[in-house]
Amino acid sequence: MDLNSDLGESFGAWHMGDDAAMLNIVTSANVACGFHAGDPAGILDTLREAASKGVAVGAHVGYPDLVGFGRRNMAPSSRELIADVVYQIGALKGLAAAAGTRVSYVKPHGALYNTIAFDQRQATDVITAIRAIDADLILVGLAGSRVLELAREQGLRTVAEAFADRAYQADGQLVSRRTPGAVIHDPTEVAERMLQLVERGSVPSIDGSNVRLEANSICVHGDSPGAVEIARAVRNTLESAGVEIQPFSSAVSSSASAALTATVSTAAASAVAGDGS
Amino acid sequence: MDLNSDLGESFGAWHMGDDAAMLNIVTSANVACGFHAGDPAGILDTLREAASKGVAVGAHVGYPDLVGFGRRNMAPSSRELIADVVYQIGALKGLAAAAGTRVSYVKPHGALYNTIAFDQRQATDVITAIRAIDADLILVGLAGSRVLELAREQGLRTVAEAFADRAYQADGQLVSRRTPGAVIHDPTEVAERMLQLVERGSVPSIDGSNVRLEANSICVHGDSPGAVEIARAVRNTLESAGVEIQPFSSAVSSSASAALTATVSTAAASAVAGDGS
Amino acid sequence: MDLNSDLGESFGAWHMGDDAAMLNIVTSANVACGFHAGDPAGILDTLREAASKGVAVGAHVGYPDLVGFGRRNMAPSSRELIADVVYQIGALKGLAAAAGTRVSYVKPHGALYNTIAFDQRQATDVITAIRAIDADLILVGLAGSRVLELAREQGLRTVAEAFADRAYQADGQLVSRRTPGAVIHDPTEVAERMLQLVERGSVPSIDGSNVRLEANSICVHGDSPGAVEIARAVRNTLESAGVEIQPFSSAVSSSASAALTATVSTAAASAVAGDGS
Amino acid sequence: MDLNSDLGESFGAWHMGDDAAMLNIVTSANVACGFHAGDPAGILDTLREAASKGVAVGAHVGYPDLVGFGRRNMAPSSRELIADVVYQIGALKGLAAAAGTRVSYVKPHGALYNTIAFDQRQATDVITAIRAIDADLILVGLAGSRVLELAREQGLRTVAEAFADRAYQADGQLVSRRTPGAVIHDPTEVAERMLQLVERGSVPSIDGSNVRLEANSICVHGDSPGAVEIARAVRNTLESAGVEIQPFSSAVSSSASAALTATVSTAAASAVAGDGS
Repeated sequence: MDLNSDLGESFGAWHMGDDAAMLNIVTSANVACGFHAGDPAGILDTLREAASKGVAVGAHVGYPDLVGFGRRNMAPSSRELIADVVYQIGALKGLAAAAGTRVSYVKPHGALYNTIAFDQRQATDVITAIRAIDADLILVGLAGSRVLELAREQGLRTVAEAFADRAYQADGQLVSRRTPGAVIHDPTEVAERMLQLVERGSVPSIDGSNVRLEANSICVHGDSPGAVEIARAVRNTLESAGVEIQPFSSAVSSSASAALTATVSTAAASAVAGDGS
Repeated sequence: MDLNSDLGESFGAWHMGDDAAMLNIVTSANVACGFHAGDPAGILDTLREAASKGVAVGAHVGYPDLVGFGRRNMAPSSRELIADVVYQIGALKGLAAAAGTRVSYVKPHGALYNTIAFDQRQATDVITAIRAIDADLILVGLAGSRVLELAREQGLRTVAEAFADRAYQADGQLVSRRTPGAVIHDPTEVAERMLQLVERGSVPSIDGSNVRLEANSICVHGDSPGAVEIARAVRNTLESAGVEIQPFSSAVSSSASAALTATVSTAAASAVAGDGS
Repeated sequence: MDLNSDLGESFGAWHMGDDAAMLNIVTSANVACGFHAGDPAGILDTLREAASKGVAVGAHVGYPDLVGFGRRNMAPSSRELIADVVYQIGALKGLAAAAGTRVSYVKPHGALYNTIAFDQRQATDVITAIRAIDADLILVGLAGSRVLELAREQGLRTVAEAFADRAYQADGQLVSRRTPGAVIHDPTEVAERMLQLVERGSVPSIDGSNVRLEANSICVHGDSPGAVEIARAVRNTLESAGVEIQPFSSAVSSSASAALTATVSTAAASAVAGDGS
Repeated sequence: MDLNSDLGESFGAWHMGDDAAMLNIVTSANVACGFHAGDPAGILDTLREAASKGVAVGAHVGYPDLVGFGRRNMAPSSRELIADVVYQIGALKGLAAAAGTRVSYVKPHGALYNTIAFDQRQATDVITAIRAIDADLILVGLAGSRVLELAREQGLRTVAEAFADRAYQADGQLVSRRTPGAVIHDPTEVAERMLQLVERGSVPSIDGSNVRLEANSICVHGDSPGAVEIARAVRNTLESAGVEIQPFSSAVSSSASAALTATVSTAAASAVAGDGS
């Protein structure tokens, strides 16, 4: 199983997250590309640390909205969105080369992540951008989201991710952050849920049933000491149970792409409304 | 001989220059990378046009100063400047790939161009950045400037450029823009000066003597109808005299790098103070 | 009658519009505030020119989206939008003081203008912002739009504007720019339509009938030589017919606010979908 | 005695400093204006808190360099710098009005602060800007710096500040941050030094002698828990000694301006090289 986290999100004098700590825990680093967060020098620092620890690197592309941290819905044209995504991936590829590593996947951030889960036009733009710059890049998205299907139809490899600390509805959708109980704070509970995910392909839903969820990566956060502790608990629990923690991107390179793509169960796949990340 | 020009300098709703016209004239396009000018979508348009016309592409990297168009001196640290240059080159490489072309050289812009002509620290940072992302990239700089020597010492190939419409001092330096006569506006005069450069390796200096100037590329401007006319006159005059107009980067790939580097005569090389571009 | 135009929209090295020419024609200048366009030095130049010509000044506030020129829909929170609008008005007030003039009104720009015509939440945020910084500021908006009603309910004075070169539907709405005939290019036709507006309170609709339209200001553009010519034709035609061209803001200060507010006829007021500016 | 601190320096999702804690300690808040730090909504929050606690507000104006936090030297033209400073003061005045308070002084930030301590051209630009928008604003600067003299010559009131945690040379200059011992970390020592400043008009210099220093405000930092603790120690020590802690700006309004201006002793005033803030 792969563990991924959003990193490189500092900006100039402003620090965010404990990248050094998280790079000891995760196997894939979603690195900001300068549009919603990250300045070139700070990004390069994170990439060097990722390279030295053998952590895989993904381009965490976002809307051009620094003050809003890429969390506000925007309405770029296709012409703009395609070019914005290519630009960010290219910039990160350049910095990764300078750091002695390479970009192996793309994970959209924030409002863009949520929008493309259901907005076919913007989803297609992101897919078009990835194919235009490097069709070998893997797209990481919300388990069960439409964008992953579209990407596979266009020949991209995809990876579905689950959110470690988020509650799921019985239909496989994430519980909205506005609903009580949407975020799970207890490290032990989060870790046990993720162990169930790996061992049984399901998580307990918020109404008590188990919901099938196929995911090849687990997203953990590192933006607070509590978040780092949860991430560590997930890794330790999985490893104690004998689960191998490794980047999906290394797996991808040695196996058929079909094995890498994942969806939630058919019942859930129809109407996933993402508000993750 | 190569003709180069600064292109892709529009930004969002603001247009600058006549890229389509210039891409019919020049053989190398210095394309803005988003820091001093250029938005991703507009850059991509320019790159597609360059690709369709077989014009070579260079990364026109600048300081992060959009409102100042990269023309104001700045004092980035080495950590910042190296990462900024890598980021910009990477972004342009990504967009170039999406446009079906590739970046073959780097030409710093504005205040950065002028600063690295004599500031060894910032010059070294730019060279370090280029080598970190792609040591096959050629560095274009002011004929006779120190940065070109430093780059060659570090193993980079370099190209020296002359400015078509700028007056030169007897020692090979550019006449400061603050001096009357610094910029030559007559298309015929500019064209004849460049013909002399190609045929005899010299240009008339502002005091009437001829100054030796070795350059493998001529920079022409396209930011006004008059500038486009001058560029056209240079090309027509050179072609009428039998000079082959082709990208230096194609020449570079088929000849020894030694032949591509150029300096002004020794007498001039010691104290060139650039204020070109 | 007042004539207004969007000015101060240059940014750094990028020029837009012929502010000097337009300031000889219009009586109210909607001056960009730096979020969608305008840098402080360029704005100050425009304000000085407006001051010297006795043209009234309004704050042309927009979304923080320079590369999109404020024309893309955004989803700021109320907390963000209120502060963004106050910030822009304050900045323009400061520059106006330095230029020897003052800000007398606020006209939202682009996507913000269109959004608040019907989006009550964002409309209320803009009104809240204006009242928080200076309740004497007049709000200029689309004739017949809901935001003007809301503003009056909150105690603000308002001015409704018509667009000189835009076609209107029979119900008083603007014809969408995507519809053929939406923009009228003939200076004589535009001028005669505005004369009818002033003399009879109506304009010919796109289907041939006359539609009632009450407006105290006419918006003219200045972003191309053709636009400046149209603006001049409107002014000349109105003046030849004896219409006094003067800022609404001077009128506002000498008459009851009720006389300054304007709406389209009741039939039209219900469902105006703005896509003006 | 007045205590001032740099506040409002968060930006969007990035937090910096503990404004709430510091507003219980200081009497003057230097609030960022959006160019080097601060977004409008965050600035407004800080201003509301300052208003509720009766803390005076100053405009902490800086270079337009968000990623560099205004700490990198820049070379704006006078036209640009004047307009940039006016813009920032105006924006903060607007937000202050919305928060129910007002801007009473200006304190330049970072590289601009240090530059104008000795660069007469940029110093004059800042003074010109302040006078252009509101000649009643007080300029806060480094004790003994040339900019304060220039400002008084131009009719502005000024306040000289001392840095609580910085070591001073025998000639009254700050010890460079690059020198060991430049920053004093012990709260008790810092507090006692400031008590000496208030009671005797001097501080111990780094070589053991006492150096005369006239200052009407003490700058304390709040960007770390340790910094907040130092600030609290300074306030407590001064109050325990019977020193009244109050904004200089309230003093200014009830006394002659001559009493408010302060310089270091003549010997020191000649060559102060600031690297404070």
